[in-house]
Amino acid sequence: MPAVDIEITDHSATCATSLTATPIAADEAADLARTFKAVADPARLRLLSIIASHEGGEACACDLNEPLGLSQPTVSHHLKVLVGAGLLEREQRGVWAFYSVVPERLDTLAGVLSTQA
Amino acid sequence: MPAVDIEITDHSATCATSLTATPIAADEAADLARTFKAVADPARLRLLSIIASHEGGEACACDLNEPLGLSQPTVSHHLKVLVGAGLLEREQRGVWAFYSVVPERLDTLAGVLSTQA
Repeated sequence: MPAVDIEITDHSATCATSLTATPIAADEAADLARTFKAVADPARLRLLSIIASHEGGEACACDLNEPLGLSQPTVSHHLKVLVGAGLLEREQRGVWAFYSVVPERLDTLAGVLSTQA
Repeated sequence: MPAVDIEITDHSATCATSLTATPIAADEAADLARTFKAVADPARLRLLSIIASHEGGEACACDLNEPLGLSQPTVSHHLKVLVGAGLLEREQRGVWAFYSVVPERLDTLAGVLSTQA
């Protein structure tokens, strides 16, 4: 009799639901707190906002230093935190990196806070 | 001629709109970051969640230590941060304080992150 390959896919924990619906578990709270920490910074909120409202929903790294009045290494650091939290996507094109927001990730976070079903 | 009293009410900045709509200003970003910092903590996320999903949408301080496994002073500190950020309301009844979430405040924060108009 031939061996049978069984593929097990774990689809748990792909969606965060509103924290007002049921008490959230400790590990989910820890995950969410990490993502909210990425958002809880004035420079990162402004970066998300500038990128999301930019033409085509993306912005070149070269366009992000000036409006924030921050140095290039500082902006790079904040961009890295936002990419690490899954809130931004980075695409290298030639010498420049382009950033776009991940709408699903922002909407998941919004859904966690929303009290509307 | 009698003096005329003119009452000027400032209604600006009462509503935060989505950060994906237009680039947010530096002072608005600073305000929002402060509120997200209050949320960006595992214990405070769990407190919000326990209180919001509790019967009647409110919980006695006496019911909040056990589910978190934290000391009473630590829970008190987190509750104070959430009240300070306008995310919880506190009402004293006899010897106990009761806490309820402020839905408008949570929904405003959710609206800031949401990419849906």
